[in-house]
Amino acid sequence: MRPKGEELIIDSQIEPRDVWSAMRVEAAAAASDEPILASYFHNTVLRHKSPEHAIADQLASVLDHSALTATALQEVIASALQRDPEISRSMLADICAWYDRDPACDQYLTPFLYFKGFHALQSHRIAHWLWNQGRTTLALYFQSRVSEQFSVDIHPAAKFGRGIMIDHATGLVVGETSVVGDNVSLLHSVTLGGSGRGSGDRHPKIGRGVMIGAGAKVLGPVRVGEEVKIAAGSLVLHDVPDHTTVAGVPARQVGGRIEGAPAFTMDQTLDSEE
Amino acid sequence: MRPKGEELIIDSQIEPRDVWSAMRVEAAAAASDEPILASYFHNTVLRHKSPEHAIADQLASVLDHSALTATALQEVIASALQRDPEISRSMLADICAWYDRDPACDQYLTPFLYFKGFHALQSHRIAHWLWNQGRTTLALYFQSRVSEQFSVDIHPAAKFGRGIMIDHATGLVVGETSVVGDNVSLLHSVTLGGSGRGSGDRHPKIGRGVMIGAGAKVLGPVRVGEEVKIAAGSLVLHDVPDHTTVAGVPARQVGGRIEGAPAFTMDQTLDSEE
Amino acid sequence: MRPKGEELIIDSQIEPRDVWSAMRVEAAAAASDEPILASYFHNTVLRHKSPEHAIADQLASVLDHSALTATALQEVIASALQRDPEISRSMLADICAWYDRDPACDQYLTPFLYFKGFHALQSHRIAHWLWNQGRTTLALYFQSRVSEQFSVDIHPAAKFGRGIMIDHATGLVVGETSVVGDNVSLLHSVTLGGSGRGSGDRHPKIGRGVMIGAGAKVLGPVRVGEEVKIAAGSLVLHDVPDHTTVAGVPARQVGGRIEGAPAFTMDQTLDSEE
Amino acid sequence: MRPKGEELIIDSQIEPRDVWSAMRVEAAAAASDEPILASYFHNTVLRHKSPEHAIADQLASVLDHSALTATALQEVIASALQRDPEISRSMLADICAWYDRDPACDQYLTPFLYFKGFHALQSHRIAHWLWNQGRTTLALYFQSRVSEQFSVDIHPAAKFGRGIMIDHATGLVVGETSVVGDNVSLLHSVTLGGSGRGSGDRHPKIGRGVMIGAGAKVLGPVRVGEEVKIAAGSLVLHDVPDHTTVAGVPARQVGGRIEGAPAFTMDQTLDSEE
Amino acid sequence: MRPKGEELIIDSQIEPRDVWSAMRVEAAAAASDEPILASYFHNTVLRHKSPEHAIADQLASVLDHSALTATALQEVIASALQRDPEISRSMLADICAWYDRDPACDQYLTPFLYFKGFHALQSHRIAHWLWNQGRTTLALYFQSRVSEQFSVDIHPAAKFGRGIMIDHATGLVVGETSVVGDNVSLLHSVTLGGSGRGSGDRHPKIGRGVMIGAGAKVLGPVRVGEEVKIAAGSLVLHDVPDHTTVAGVPARQVGGRIEGAPAFTMDQTLDSEE
Amino acid sequence: MRPKGEELIIDSQIEPRDVWSAMRVEAAAAASDEPILASYFHNTVLRHKSPEHAIADQLASVLDHSALTATALQEVIASALQRDPEISRSMLADICAWYDRDPACDQYLTPFLYFKGFHALQSHRIAHWLWNQGRTTLALYFQSRVSEQFSVDIHPAAKFGRGIMIDHATGLVVGETSVVGDNVSLLHSVTLGGSGRGSGDRHPKIGRGVMIGAGAKVLGPVRVGEEVKIAAGSLVLHDVPDHTTVAGVPARQVGGRIEGAPAFTMDQTLDSEE
Repeated sequence: MRPKGEELIIDSQIEPRDVWSAMRVEAAAAASDEPILASYFHNTVLRHKSPEHAIADQLASVLDHSALTATALQEVIASALQRDPEISRSMLADICAWYDRDPACDQYLTPFLYFKGFHALQSHRIAHWLWNQGRTTLALYFQSRVSEQFSVDIHPAAKFGRGIMIDHATGLVVGETSVVGDNVSLLHSVTLGGSGRGSGDRHPKIGRGVMIGAGAKVLGPVRVGEEVKIAAGSLVLHDVPDHTTVAGVPARQVGGRIEGAPAFTMDQTLDSEE
Repeated sequence: MRPKGEELIIDSQIEPRDVWSAMRVEAAAAASDEPILASYFHNTVLRHKSPEHAIADQLASVLDHSALTATALQEVIASALQRDPEISRSMLADICAWYDRDPACDQYLTPFLYFKGFHALQSHRIAHWLWNQGRTTLALYFQSRVSEQFSVDIHPAAKFGRGIMIDHATGLVVGETSVVGDNVSLLHSVTLGGSGRGSGDRHPKIGRGVMIGAGAKVLGPVRVGEEVKIAAGSLVLHDVPDHTTVAGVPARQVGGRIEGAPAFTMDQTLDSEE
Repeated sequence: MRPKGEELIIDSQIEPRDVWSAMRVEAAAAASDEPILASYFHNTVLRHKSPEHAIADQLASVLDHSALTATALQEVIASALQRDPEISRSMLADICAWYDRDPACDQYLTPFLYFKGFHALQSHRIAHWLWNQGRTTLALYFQSRVSEQFSVDIHPAAKFGRGIMIDHATGLVVGETSVVGDNVSLLHSVTLGGSGRGSGDRHPKIGRGVMIGAGAKVLGPVRVGEEVKIAAGSLVLHDVPDHTTVAGVPARQVGGRIEGAPAFTMDQTLDSEE
Repeated sequence: MRPKGEELIIDSQIEPRDVWSAMRVEAAAAASDEPILASYFHNTVLRHKSPEHAIADQLASVLDHSALTATALQEVIASALQRDPEISRSMLADICAWYDRDPACDQYLTPFLYFKGFHALQSHRIAHWLWNQGRTTLALYFQSRVSEQFSVDIHPAAKFGRGIMIDHATGLVVGETSVVGDNVSLLHSVTLGGSGRGSGDRHPKIGRGVMIGAGAKVLGPVRVGEEVKIAAGSLVLHDVPDHTTVAGVPARQVGGRIEGAPAFTMDQTLDSEE
Repeated sequence: MRPKGEELIIDSQIEPRDVWSAMRVEAAAAASDEPILASYFHNTVLRHKSPEHAIADQLASVLDHSALTATALQEVIASALQRDPEISRSMLADICAWYDRDPACDQYLTPFLYFKGFHALQSHRIAHWLWNQGRTTLALYFQSRVSEQFSVDIHPAAKFGRGIMIDHATGLVVGETSVVGDNVSLLHSVTLGGSGRGSGDRHPKIGRGVMIGAGAKVLGPVRVGEEVKIAAGSLVLHDVPDHTTVAGVPARQVGGRIEGAPAFTMDQTLDSEE
Repeated sequence: MRPKGEELIIDSQIEPRDVWSAMRVEAAAAASDEPILASYFHNTVLRHKSPEHAIADQLASVLDHSALTATALQEVIASALQRDPEISRSMLADICAWYDRDPACDQYLTPFLYFKGFHALQSHRIAHWLWNQGRTTLALYFQSRVSEQFSVDIHPAAKFGRGIMIDHATGLVVGETSVVGDNVSLLHSVTLGGSGRGSGDRHPKIGRGVMIGAGAKVLGPVRVGEEVKIAAGSLVLHDVPDHTTVAGVPARQVGGRIEGAPAFTMDQTLDSEE
């Protein structure tokens, strides 16, 4: 099993089958530790022959509703995963992102089973595929169920790269024309929102390696550069250059050039507070 | 069908039956597009003979719980809608508010079916009616169910005008003595909160046409004037004059006089950031 | 029945049996007022012989899921309450905290039945006991269910004193190595978060009597002193001395020495805004 | 309240509003006796303004399923009850039939709340109305739900008079072209079945006042006369004259002329067994 | 573990703790064989410290309904089991009855988990206790739930001895004043029914060791002697002497004196058919 | 589409794809006739690409339970159908059996959607496959769920041919060593039961083309020949020769040689009753 650490993600050396193998080992141990949940681990992980199969089942279960039941959902999701292999590759990269960046997450299994940010993001990846297939009605239904279940509201047209972590997740809002690059870390209550009523492009574009702190709002079609840190609680209404930190309501640049990706270090401090 | 745009709302030219007719046309088209959800559209919209009937059913369904089941809820809600026609007039104005102000909402059907802000607000309108009838126990039960289901916490005594949009909605908190005027737009995670432990009036009064940005907090019995813009993430502890913009933690006035209602333009930018 | 007010808490004169007696009187009156909910009050309060029994039942009911059903949960929770009497003592102190500090809460019954902040906190107290018993898998399951159901995310290792109020609660996040002292009031959307990826101590320590306003973030292993007020929406990255107020993004000290515990007064204003 | 006894039914002196009043008195007493079920009695009886309203709610609740939820069912059922007042008149006569003929039933409330024979029969009355309206698909759906829920299988085209008791009910089967007269008592596991594969009339016609004992089968388009007794476990393949008793596999006439309606006396003995 | 066979029951050598121990061993093996059901075996058997605890949980689970939820049921049932230890002794004797007499049942666990005849009988034992406590409303509710869930209708006033097997169970009906002795075997669709409308004693009394074949009806206050065999499908309207066999519609005595208890041999043949 | 009639079955000319095509046409028409159920028809039939897929989904839905949820059941069932194609061939022959023999069934869709005899039989076919694979624990769980849900109790070891109709179905019992030939029609409440406690073969063997009437019991390891008619309510304890009719409790031969298969004609009359 690969060591806990950021390097593999950065170097794109993800080996998805290894992640899945690790999850199975962890699930078997957990089932043994806590017999009251043994079938839970069996049903969610151990009985599945592939991570695609497991994720289809998991998402179908969390989105189950009398309007669209788990077995119907499972088919839709499995079909998406089969036709677009990029979805499951992204999902496995997301699992690694949590494992690498969240000190409270010491198992690959943890985001998959327990983190609603993970469930919401993967549900979005399916909804996004449906949206691109022209099944906008069903995509909006997914968005609505995710918003109800997880308090996470991502428009199905929004685009996400790989290796995304959405920590804690409650209150996240991502608008229709948003684009989120690879290896971004978003904390709970972050908003990538629109500004104004016009149609067309009206949401942020977030560069790779960016970390956006809890409760920060980025509004309008602004460009946030690569490896930027946006401090928690900030309000960003303008473009942010690469490798910089911004903070405040409204946000201003603080401190100097950042070395390394804030998404990986998860350092919330500000170099230069006067 | 009336054109998408703000004028009709401003001029109070809402024609509720037209909204309901439009929703039925949209639902029929959606049922045809996505057969997997055909009964969903039928049950929520097409089988109903009036919008009051449909909304009673929709709210009963989302608030359903073993402590108070859907059929009992439906009766309570239908009774409120019948005795106070203002509730459904407000509801139809709210649907128009979303349609007019949210670029991602291009159908009247969308808020009715998918937006938990809409469900929470209409549930509140029922709870408010119950509260005024002296059924405070049941009103508090409604508040609690809405808080659990939607992560939106509105005290049943709070007063709302017509044409309210609560976009995304997660984390909204509105306290007991709050008053929200007509045609206000509230983003997610907005707080209209109290200050101190005294009894009596202790929550904000929000003028008509105001827009309060995501995550902004207005605390205490302050008066926010008409057509005010409160920037996302701000903390407002003092009165705000009409036609002004405030921003910051704590908030200060920025920029000049606002022309037009921020609730309609939904413009999140700040004229004068230095 | 003890008078509504703060003194008893401060003086540690809580008499738990009195609280439970009061809740029973209130529940009987509510059942009589609102027959549609009579069994609800009977099942949740009146049929129970002790508050421990009632809380075990209440939490089992709200955490019920096909993966771990209510009757199995009830046993786990009842066992924790029996083995560690401190849990129910804290629970009763928490009920008093709400009753004393929230003007909209004029019954002891209200937080017990209706406030998800109360349900989330008590579920955490059980999860914390499980964590300390080495049942980390089950503890993480509890955390996940609470996060899904209540949009409140508290790591099971986090430590809480007695007399805690979490008002409205949506979006609260409390990290693994956080410590919250006695008689603290936390508003919704507060974050006690980590900073950086290192293991070990990385979350805040909150002194007794502190009030943290809505949406405030305290990040990293900082020390927040006793009877501190953190203004809503603030971002705290450094230690805060006893009896002071901080505000802003990032937060700075404002005003003078605070007399009395902000957690009790719940005063959200800032003395010295210039 | 009318005295317990058969005369009123025979003389068609049912006073439906009296039955409903009696049920309300009984429900109030039961709610008081057993607080754990207080809301149950409130929701099923006390909160309703008419027996039609109560029965629509009760049937909707027992037939609730994700394919057709309670609130949609309620509308269909309420509509049937409104358009054909004979249905509720028959229902109230059925309640009297149980009350008069079943010694273990000493309340009007009992069949309404507890007897699946009553629920199945009233569901059939709705399905029969749907069938006659040409809504055969929905009528068959009702039949299927009733068969699953109650183990009672009545084809929606079968015709029933008033004042029918179906005691215990499990295993009852009534075929498409069956006709059951007024004031008939059917025990559990009775079959009114077809014979052969031909189309057209192929099921029994049962005269008024008949009692058919547990497990008896009447097969083919035979005519069973008025006030006939069919012994439990019998197999009837031929017409049965008025006022006679038949028994055996296959059944033969036993004993002499019957005085009075076996459906009322419920006497299971055979006069002349040699 | 005691050997499979009838002797122990006849000799009253049941050792309840041995039965419970055996069930735990069987459940552990089953959980290991079929991981998909591991938590099922854990939750139903392995996590419980006593058979009383397990049965209370099992019955609460099968009778769960929004009108009276599992956790409330569990308390009622646990209370009955605690106050009347005879109930659990009878339950364990019933488990042994199935194990000894049903060749398809080779584990003690099987009736406990899988046989609805066992669930219905134990639910009745609780309802009977409630009836005797004067809680007739709740007792009738139990009867109704059992009838709906299991298609088994036993009046709560009916009396049952120990060591009862109700094989397959569908359609069983047992009336109010019935008495069933120790070590009786009842097949599915058996009726112990009343005759006539009079009040007072009107149902059968069944002696110990009796076997009543599938679909047989015993009607009226007749006495069925000890170690009697009633052939399947028979209709019994008169007393039956000890150690005899009856068959037919209506039933007549066939064959000679029976040696041994038909309830144990389960022999369905008739010695003397001419 | 093939004409309604028996010939194709007798000649083994079933064309399964034609049956499935017919079901789809019928479902599309039903969805159009009854919009309230449109998604029901879509989810159960129209969205599936094969009858195997549809049946797996249908059975998973009816057997859904918190102990083993629909999505896990679907996988088990789909796997059985894939590994043993005989199961789906038998299922399609069973659908034809209902269509051909039941005058009230004029669509192929009807048994598939509405008849619990069909659901119980197909669930048994899966349980039987599991039993043969050595997964006896899971097979017994299936038996138990079917018994609870449908009041049909078939031991997983029992063997069934193709083209089986189980009309109405409530109360059917089929024991462990039973064998049922091709093209058999069983009415409700039929028992194929054991006799005695010995191990080994102890249940009936039913020849092809046999019809067993409602409530008839066949007990012990008797041989029932080909194209036999067993009258409703009969008790059969001895072998029955080919092409004969038996009736009575206990049963005796009545009438002469039967021409044609009683299972097809469904004629319930007895040629020679004197």
